[in-house]
Amino acid sequence: MSDNIYKITEVVGTSETGIEDAIRGAIERTARTVNDIGWFEVTDTRGHVVDGKIAHFQVTLRIGFHVHD
Amino acid sequence: MSDNIYKITEVVGTSETGIEDAIRGAIERTARTVNDIGWFEVTDTRGHVVDGKIAHFQVTLRIGFHVHD
Amino acid sequence: MSDNIYKITEVVGTSETGIEDAIRGAIERTARTVNDIGWFEVTDTRGHVVDGKIAHFQVTLRIGFHVHD
Amino acid sequence: MSDNIYKITEVVGTSETGIEDAIRGAIERTARTVNDIGWFEVTDTRGHVVDGKIAHFQVTLRIGFHVHD
Amino acid sequence: MSDNIYKITEVVGTSETGIEDAIRGAIERTARTVNDIGWFEVTDTRGHVVDGKIAHFQVTLRIGFHVHD
Amino acid sequence: MSDNIYKITEVVGTSETGIEDAIRGAIERTARTVNDIGWFEVTDTRGHVVDGKIAHFQVTLRIGFHVHD
Amino acid sequence: MSDNIYKITEVVGTSETGIEDAIRGAIERTARTVNDIGWFEVTDTRGHVVDGKIAHFQVTLRIGFHVHD
Amino acid sequence: MSDNIYKITEVVGTSETGIEDAIRGAIERTARTVNDIGWFEVTDTRGHVVDGKIAHFQVTLRIGFHVHD
Amino acid sequence: MSDNIYKITEVVGTSETGIEDAIRGAIERTARTVNDIGWFEVTDTRGHVVDGKIAHFQVTLRIGFHVHD
Amino acid sequence: MSDNIYKITEVVGTSETGIEDAIRGAIERTARTVNDIGWFEVTDTRGHVVDGKIAHFQVTLRIGFHVHD
Amino acid sequence: MSDNIYKITEVVGTSETGIEDAIRGAIERTARTVNDIGWFEVTDTRGHVVDGKIAHFQVTLRIGFHVHD
Amino acid sequence: MSDNIYKITEVVGTSETGIEDAIRGAIERTARTVNDIGWFEVTDTRGHVVDGKIAHFQVTLRIGFHVHD
Repeated sequence: MSDNIYKITEVVGTSETGIEDAIRGAIERTARTVNDIGWFEVTDTRGHVVDGKIAHFQVTLRIGFHVHD
Repeated sequence: MSDNIYKITEVVGTSETGIEDAIRGAIERTARTVNDIGWFEVTDTRGHVVDGKIAHFQVTLRIGFHVHD
Repeated sequence: MSDNIYKITEVVGTSETGIEDAIRGAIERTARTVNDIGWFEVTDTRGHVVDGKIAHFQVTLRIGFHVHD
Repeated sequence: MSDNIYKITEVVGTSETGIEDAIRGAIERTARTVNDIGWFEVTDTRGHVVDGKIAHFQVTLRIGFHVHD
Repeated sequence: MSDNIYKITEVVGTSETGIEDAIRGAIERTARTVNDIGWFEVTDTRGHVVDGKIAHFQVTLRIGFHVHD
Repeated sequence: MSDNIYKITEVVGTSETGIEDAIRGAIERTARTVNDIGWFEVTDTRGHVVDGKIAHFQVTLRIGFHVHD
Repeated sequence: MSDNIYKITEVVGTSETGIEDAIRGAIERTARTVNDIGWFEVTDTRGHVVDGKIAHFQVTLRIGFHVHD
Repeated sequence: MSDNIYKITEVVGTSETGIEDAIRGAIERTARTVNDIGWFEVTDTRGHVVDGKIAHFQVTLRIGFHVHD
Repeated sequence: MSDNIYKITEVVGTSETGIEDAIRGAIERTARTVNDIGWFEVTDTRGHVVDGKIAHFQVTLRIGFHVHD
Repeated sequence: MSDNIYKITEVVGTSETGIEDAIRGAIERTARTVNDIGWFEVTDTRGHVVDGKIAHFQVTLRIGFHVHD
Repeated sequence: MSDNIYKITEVVGTSETGIEDAIRGAIERTARTVNDIGWFEVTDTRGHVVDGKIAHFQVTLRIGFHVHD
Repeated sequence: MSDNIYKITEVVGTSETGIEDAIRGAIERTARTVNDIGWFEVTDTRGHVVDGKIAHFQVTLRIGFHVHD
């Protein structure tokens, strides 16, 4: 009934295997310390290359979560 | 020989499984009612999180299609 | 010990199968002629649609590489 | 259980009285012809000035709605 | 006396001859099916090249029109 | 019959009470020295906070006016 | 006399009644746990729509505060 | 030999005939009152439409000029 | 049958006569050394002014071309 | 006690020696004719190169100043 | 061997002497409470002006650091 | 007398000592292989941090140079 407040935290997930794994990893690790995550938004997709192959995908996320009183 | 005109429609596809499935779903459903889609562009990649896991990927697309006379 | 210089080249990778394959293809082909690629950044994700299905994903990358003296 | 699709339509609401009235007017008129609006986003806030006073606020919205099968 | 509502549609005009012809063509074709167009805004100017010559200019427009009750 | 020229001036209005008051104040003060203002566009909405309360809203406007010969 | 450092936190305020109420609510709740807030900037204005009416305004703010040693 | 300072003024040129005429008109009128214009940059290309035809092109320019001591 | 790779090169064309001539000149000169240009995109339109008149239009293009194995 | 109004002027400072000197020069020259400058924001950092060396840094600033009644 | 996660915090450093000092101050103070900072990115360069002179440079940084399990 | 063409190359300069040194290094090394550089534009300012101190500034430049026939 009262109005809600959300905070946004910015996280970079990395994965050797792909973009979605980098996103999932970032969400799941953030969920260990932050309750009540509601959404995410991808703001940057980058990667690290070694010897001409992709070593890691690096995906920057803004993650929104509910702040309880 | 005459000049062509295209329209752009904006659609959000969602998928429980991943980004490309969200894109494919959006294209295929749009193709049920719009003929002659030519291209798409991803403008936003977001997701809905429930209990610390990604419930849906939400991908916003601009979809271009040929307008016939 | 001396300061390094990197160049950035812009490439569009395409793939019938998905976004990551388009990225990997672009990196691997660029690595045939450019040594010492260090990173990439995705700047655009588009696709070509034929008969209501995605024919190709088209992913634009900025690719950074070390310039040796 | 199946994945959902949303469309986004872009509308400019105007009001002599203020920004929120322009937004409400745009949502309510759009709702006459579009079912199941879910969200809006303000992308531009402008106004028309006559004789040194604001004649109309003009607020551009992207309005998202659920597409049913 | 009541507040007005406008919709924005996005169109790509093409022309073999130039940018303004692409714009004019897009406006004139849109006007066949949409009454009361009020303004346009150019958001992208591209072109298709064949054999080292410009085959078509492709100009993306946002076109605003009055929605009557 | 001849083509018109407009200039754009950029102004920040402030108000203790709200966004629209900051806009109105900026337009009305600009109108003391500039004739024939035609439109404005909001480009930034900020505020100053003192003791955990909003002391002022600060709204940046681009204001367009007709230049007469 | 020494140079100051500020941090920026990102918050989404919501309100059933309007944009300024969403901003005020976000500032006031943030001020419960953060001392010495100095300014805010609005980066996004969205809303949730239910049954063709605005259920909540959702305003994203960047909030700057002084970090004391 | 001393360092130079330039100012930037923002102007909207309009033309019934085309984009370049709108630009030329804006530059030439600005040059009546401002000496030593050095460059311009187009930031927006819009138009006004009446009865399904382009009535005016409206081109927004940033115009830079040398400030003399 | 295999996936294609395109490179993007960035070029500024200039012309005393107009925007389209600057674009055409940039495409035609680039085509002397680059085979298989497919498209261009205008990213900036500027000009040089001398004695209150436009001396040159300067148009920045991103030009995409097919990379053959 | 009454609400304040600020104007923003846009200036390009240049310096043979560096970015901060270009900024300082622009502020100090603007302060000769404008009272009560309150802040600046850097929007562009460019430079002119002659014979493979930087001849001038060119820094574009938005400069805000208080408008007194 | 496992995938890494980084967080991004946003900080404004200030300095009476210059841009790099503002950056260094922000990094060094953040390093008092955050281990394992890996990178920073400048997103805004502003300053405060008093009596026609720069009183402080204000540089906004996004600072990335490694999150350990 | 004929119209000129310029190319833009993108380079990242790095320096342990500061932003301007990173820019100068990038320009001077580029000038070893590219004649007739005319200008640069800074598009990104980042840095690498080790043990809580800035190890390198990394400045991304777009560098424009004249293409001779």
